[in-house]
Amino acid sequence: MITKQLIEPKSIVVVGGSDDIHKPGGTVLRNLQDGNFKGELYVVNPKMDEVQGVKSYRDVKDLPQVDCAILAIAAKFCPTAVEVLAKQKNTKAFIILSAGFHEENEEGAKLERQIVDTIDSVGGALIGPNCIGVLTNHYSGVFTSPIPELNPQGVDLISGSGATALFIMDSGMQKGIKFNSMYSVGNSAQMGVEEILEYMDESFDPETSSRVKLLYVESIEKPEKLLKHASSLIRKGCRIAAVKSGGSAAGSRAASSHTGALASSDVAVEALFRKAGIVRCNGRDELMTVAGIFMHPEVKGKNMAVVTHAGGPAVMLTDALSNGGMDVPHIEGEKAKELLSKLFGGSSVGNPIDFLATGTAEQLGFILDACDKDFDNIDGMAVIFGSPGLFPVFDVYNVLDEKMKTSKKPIFPIFPSSKIVKAEIDEFVSKGRVYFPDEVLFGNALCKIYKTPAPQPEHFDMPDMDVKKIREVVDNAQNGYLSPEEIHALLDAAGVARAKEGVSDNEEEIVKMAKEIGFPLVMKVVGPIHKSDVGGVVMNVNDEETVRREFKRMMQIKDTYAIMLAQQLSGTQVFIGAKRDDKFGHMVLCGLGGIFIEVLKDVKAGLAPMSKSEAHGLIKELKSYKIIQGVRGQEPVNEDKFAEAVMRISALVKVAPEIFEMDLNPLLGNKDNVVAVDARIRIEK
Amino acid sequence: MITKQLIEPKSIVVVGGSDDIHKPGGTVLRNLQDGNFKGELYVVNPKMDEVQGVKSYRDVKDLPQVDCAILAIAAKFCPTAVEVLAKQKNTKAFIILSAGFHEENEEGAKLERQIVDTIDSVGGALIGPNCIGVLTNHYSGVFTSPIPELNPQGVDLISGSGATALFIMDSGMQKGIKFNSMYSVGNSAQMGVEEILEYMDESFDPETSSRVKLLYVESIEKPEKLLKHASSLIRKGCRIAAVKSGGSAAGSRAASSHTGALASSDVAVEALFRKAGIVRCNGRDELMTVAGIFMHPEVKGKNMAVVTHAGGPAVMLTDALSNGGMDVPHIEGEKAKELLSKLFGGSSVGNPIDFLATGTAEQLGFILDACDKDFDNIDGMAVIFGSPGLFPVFDVYNVLDEKMKTSKKPIFPIFPSSKIVKAEIDEFVSKGRVYFPDEVLFGNALCKIYKTPAPQPEHFDMPDMDVKKIREVVDNAQNGYLSPEEIHALLDAAGVARAKEGVSDNEEEIVKMAKEIGFPLVMKVVGPIHKSDVGGVVMNVNDEETVRREFKRMMQIKDTYAIMLAQQLSGTQVFIGAKRDDKFGHMVLCGLGGIFIEVLKDVKAGLAPMSKSEAHGLIKELKSYKIIQGVRGQEPVNEDKFAEAVMRISALVKVAPEIFEMDLNPLLGNKDNVVAVDARIRIEK
Repeated sequence: MITKQLIEPKSIVVVGGSDDIHKPGGTVLRNLQDGNFKGELYVVNPKMDEVQGVKSYRDVKDLPQVDCAILAIAAKFCPTAVEVLAKQKNTKAFIILSAGFHEENEEGAKLERQIVDTIDSVGGALIGPNCIGVLTNHYSGVFTSPIPELNPQGVDLISGSGATALFIMDSGMQKGIKFNSMYSVGNSAQMGVEEILEYMDESFDPETSSRVKLLYVESIEKPEKLLKHASSLIRKGCRIAAVKSGGSAAGSRAASSHTGALASSDVAVEALFRKAGIVRCNGRDELMTVAGIFMHPEVKGKNMAVVTHAGGPAVMLTDALSNGGMDVPHIEGEKAKELLSKLFGGSSVGNPIDFLATGTAEQLGFILDACDKDFDNIDGMAVIFGSPGLFPVFDVYNVLDEKMKTSKKPIFPIFPSSKIVKAEIDEFVSKGRVYFPDEVLFGNALCKIYKTPAPQPEHFDMPDMDVKKIREVVDNAQNGYLSPEEIHALLDAAGVARAKEGVSDNEEEIVKMAKEIGFPLVMKVVGPIHKSDVGGVVMNVNDEETVRREFKRMMQIKDTYAIMLAQQLSGTQVFIGAKRDDKFGHMVLCGLGGIFIEVLKDVKAGLAPMSKSEAHGLIKELKSYKIIQGVRGQEPVNEDKFAEAVMRISALVKVAPEIFEMDLNPLLGNKDNVVAVDARIRIEK
Repeated sequence: MITKQLIEPKSIVVVGGSDDIHKPGGTVLRNLQDGNFKGELYVVNPKMDEVQGVKSYRDVKDLPQVDCAILAIAAKFCPTAVEVLAKQKNTKAFIILSAGFHEENEEGAKLERQIVDTIDSVGGALIGPNCIGVLTNHYSGVFTSPIPELNPQGVDLISGSGATALFIMDSGMQKGIKFNSMYSVGNSAQMGVEEILEYMDESFDPETSSRVKLLYVESIEKPEKLLKHASSLIRKGCRIAAVKSGGSAAGSRAASSHTGALASSDVAVEALFRKAGIVRCNGRDELMTVAGIFMHPEVKGKNMAVVTHAGGPAVMLTDALSNGGMDVPHIEGEKAKELLSKLFGGSSVGNPIDFLATGTAEQLGFILDACDKDFDNIDGMAVIFGSPGLFPVFDVYNVLDEKMKTSKKPIFPIFPSSKIVKAEIDEFVSKGRVYFPDEVLFGNALCKIYKTPAPQPEHFDMPDMDVKKIREVVDNAQNGYLSPEEIHALLDAAGVARAKEGVSDNEEEIVKMAKEIGFPLVMKVVGPIHKSDVGGVVMNVNDEETVRREFKRMMQIKDTYAIMLAQQLSGTQVFIGAKRDDKFGHMVLCGLGGIFIEVLKDVKAGLAPMSKSEAHGLIKELKSYKIIQGVRGQEPVNEDKFAEAVMRISALVKVAPEIFEMDLNPLLGNKDNVVAVDARIRIEK
């Protein structure tokens, strides 16, 4: 667990501190000093009394009491050092930079376990091993460079890969992204991404905490914790984006060789991120673009004004926004004409607002004011302004900066001439601003954020279910597939509609049953083998009179000893499934049946339990959603009933986690209901 | 048309040349001088005798004979200047930078037409108006900066948007992309992207011409010309990538307001690019990434080795390659073990090949040699090497450069620390190298190139068709929908299988017909209204004996005066359509029928005519292709017959271009054949 000594240590020792700044023990010491660490600083180096001007002890045992230890010594020496520090020096925070632990071999894994046990025993915190360290606004405990300028409004970066954190910061700094903290969790021996997020959630202060969190993860070990704290932070007003890599088969092998952990199932990760409201990014560049957008006020709708002095990039951005589900709506009316009159001839304001290569800073001001105050159908502005190729653009970027301070709507600066107007961009960035070098990458990222749903509510009502009955069926069941009777009992107890049927040799009972099941019905004789041949099957039974008449007639058929009634269903085949994952718990999947699952893989998944509204969200994202809505005069599937069934299955597997997998395939959905026709449930206790 | 005077002028006049280098007339003159233009240089400026040290004439009339004129004067003065230059000064090349022509209003359009007429009348060439100019290795005729270092091995850039060309060069130069030429075609009044490409094709010299062409276009006015010369260039060994923007509805409006032209249909553009073998890019960044890959030798297969000193980016790249259809295959065996023994403990060679943050330049050399010589299942190497955070990496990038010179397999350098090791990257780039800052953007671009098909062959055999019959039917047809008989005649003449039928009252004729149509057959009485009720419909007729017996029986049925035979078909519904576009000619579309078209939009389109192999290519790209192959025991659709039908329809519409649109919907496809069951053809002459 995170300790105060890790975040804000009063004293730090670098064990393995060195004068050689090309070694981790040298660089981290230099960074601590450069980063103006205000507390006591010590070094342990068996050969030196002073390292980089800092007092060095020959042995850990000689140290005074110290809050936080950064270890840059060979793996095999770590356990002893940790033991002494934890037990004798009251050290409650450890950052182990060294590699050679469980990522390397079993021997290393043993050392790692030993260290964790020691630190756990004193209630200390451990970051790493096999990491680049920690960067907070109290100290720069990393051995790499560059070290970004730390800023309380900047982003918090938590990374499962040290080098990736380094590269993310390198790329982000170039776009003006500021950082508030960076945690490289390495092997996550004691604390991983989940624990850091937990700390950020629990220590969140609406007045002072930074609001953008970025994650790089290959393996999610504690999905429930991640979900809980990520969604809690987002509900508190934070915004979170994450790269989760290793999703492909080859990528999973790569991740496994990288961290020694198997990558989490990509479907499960997708479901988790959706539920939490995390924006999932592919790669560093996209993560930094999303982070840049997060540094701006939120766009409250989907309507963007594209403001430009160059037609081409505006067309490309408009394509990107439109294709990504946002809009660049037409701007017209008196106010638009008024704006046009302030621009040079040949300009257009219909959106994109193109004020030409000759456009001036003053004109940009008019445009941004009009978008902010006059055009109600605009939620935000993307301003594309590079070099016109002729003159500097300091004045334009100044106006942009000024308008960004006052505009009620967010303004995003896209600067496509990052080479030729570098001086202007540097000045803009020095004011704390972020910019975007490519309009299409910006547009794609903005759409990705727009399409990421809000986190699901922390609490929602579970549906009414006969929990006692569910437990009774499951407790009495063996491992393996349930019998039809058990399946019926479970579905009924969970309130999931299924095709109803019944058998009787009594006319009144049959009539009663028919009323319960509802019309239309199929009636079949019980007894004869070739039922149809003997007139023993009647479809489309629509009223009591027919039930009675057919009952009487059919009971006369040779060998018949009873009559079976079954609900006569029609509709579109849909599918609901559930599957248990050791880490993620149950995923519930839904989609259309048949080829939609098997060929087109048109399936969406959520983590159980789901609210009905989350289930609706999944259904609406299906590629085949139009079929559910009813296309070309076809009967729709009752979406609400479909969502309810999904929600009820997600509740069922929470009550009966022994369900290892289940398939309702198909359910038949029509405008009135969605009813399971065939089901398979496998128990694994 | 392009003239020698445009490419390699012996003399150039800047009309409107100025001392003010913040004006186009000033900057272009400076650029010409900075670019070491070797010929005679003049200026026309009514107020000056010398401008920037160059002799200035007060009037165009005073000029000596001059090859090429660059105009930077107001639009209204251009026609007269052009008239004098073309008629009196033997000027054969014009670059008009000025705006205010057809992109602005009808008056401007008139001026533009006047200029084109004048230039056409002397066989001259015109670039623009409303452009930033031309950059060749003979002169720098642009008014913007930056001007990239020109290099005969660099890329040729042709852009419909001047500012976009500028931004593309800005972004490309930062990644080390070299340029050989740049043409900003502006309004394309006389020459557009198509004509420049035509020139590059016709003047192509395998010894000296550069091999990478990049296009930015919003509107394709002459698709046939573009197709012809782009595919010809690619067949000669060039590689072409293009951004075609304005594809979305809002983007099309934006493009229209930008260039005054309606954007081309995105489906048609997709079809054109596929046929030509052009890699379609979304945006500048992707275009530059693809261009960077083009500057390397071609990857001959889909198997990449990912070589890295940092796990995270390798995992992300592996994901990107796998998800994009390429592979990062496992590497094992003796040679792999040998390589591993040369790396530090903890390294892995299974691919990704991770030689750790401490990995050295020498080790990188071993790895690249092994990939090149020992690992047969590797087609190319992507090397991810940023800053380890501790020391410079000059030696690593040197080894990379050396190995790139000797390796038979392409090596792609991905440098994720573009800020911290900028000095090293600058040195690498100064050797003529290109690098990639983001592994995921690189991986996506590599996959995009891998998936772009080769250009279709220039010549291929058209199928045997009864062209005379086709012309006869079409010539005799009115505008509007064809009758069933006309449709049958056209399909038969084109050799497209359709459900066959025939009617006779003669037993021998019926038997003959049955043999022609083929079994199974449906037989129906002709005459009675309720055919089934009177026993007048027989399915599954499988042999001659049954035909004779049923014929005799059925002819006895009351009111029957003849018997109809029809092919009894079963199979999967597929779809073929064709549609004429004013500019692109006919597009032929194919896919599965029903919801696949209407809901899932799973349709692929090609430009007519298509070879069978192109048709196969389209079919294989359908999302529902697995259904055509036969999924889960379902009967497949005969892909070859499907492709043949697509090919034949594409030939039919070439022979009968009066066909405005046609739909074969559905055709029924089974393992033996694909047969049109219903068809609609509309003629518009």
